Amino acid sequence: MAFLAHLEAVVNQVPGALACSVMGFDGIPVETHQSDDAVEMDLQSSWVEYANVLSQLRGAADSMRTGAVAEMAVSSEKVVTLMRLVSPDYFLVLAMRPDGNYGKGRYVLRVTAPKVKAEL
Amino acid sequence: MAFLAHLEAVVNQVPGALACSVMGFDGIPVETHQSDDAVEMDLQSSWVEYANVLSQLRGAADSMRTGAVAEMAVSSEKVVTLMRLVSPDYFLVLAMRPDGNYGKGRYVLRVTAPKVKAEL
Repeated sequence: MAFLAHLEAVVNQVPGALACSVMGFDGIPVETHQSDDAVEMDLQSSWVEYANVLSQLRGAADSMRTGAVAEMAVSSEKVVTLMRLVSPDYFLVLAMRPDGNYGKGRYVLRVTAPKVKAEL
Repeated sequence: MAFLAHLEAVVNQVPGALACSVMGFDGIPVETHQSDDAVEMDLQSSWVEYANVLSQLRGAADSMRTGAVAEMAVSSEKVVTLMRLVSPDYFLVLAMRPDGNYGKGRYVLRVTAPKVKAEL
């Protein structure tokens, strides 16, 4: 379970990245890498909330005709958060500054998800 | 309340766009423009679910230090859905095909939100 190298690589590759984590749908982070800028921010409490919402959307997808949820993003005043499903139990979450590279963040999560899945 | 022209302009400007709507946080669409491709899809039921989630995230933002939520996106197998807050009671929602132009969609919603707000 060598997640940390993948999480570090995500944060280093994405301009404006604050932190990247592998999280369970129960809202508990398995492993996290955060940049020095992120230390003073309380990202965990929003991640727990987002895990809850993502879990809810995944459940609702069964009754909707739009298919399984693969990705979610929430932009707020101080943080942009991108999430991508890795497996039925885990997802990747990336927090960025609002001026961070959103497109690069989505791309890097997409290519990293299968690598993390392979380690699970 | 001439929303429709703005919604049509969003759908016409964004490659892959299926439908655009002004919705209340109660999940009721005020006005919708949809492309011919969208007619057979049941987008409404997912929008009601997303309105619910967005409302929940907005409420949670008070207790989080990440600031007010401005935007949310959910990518599922068949549809990508982008949402942007317009006012405390309304938001814009744009449904696109998965191969649609995500970045253009975000940009067009950002510039359209103040125009729609002015009509409310």
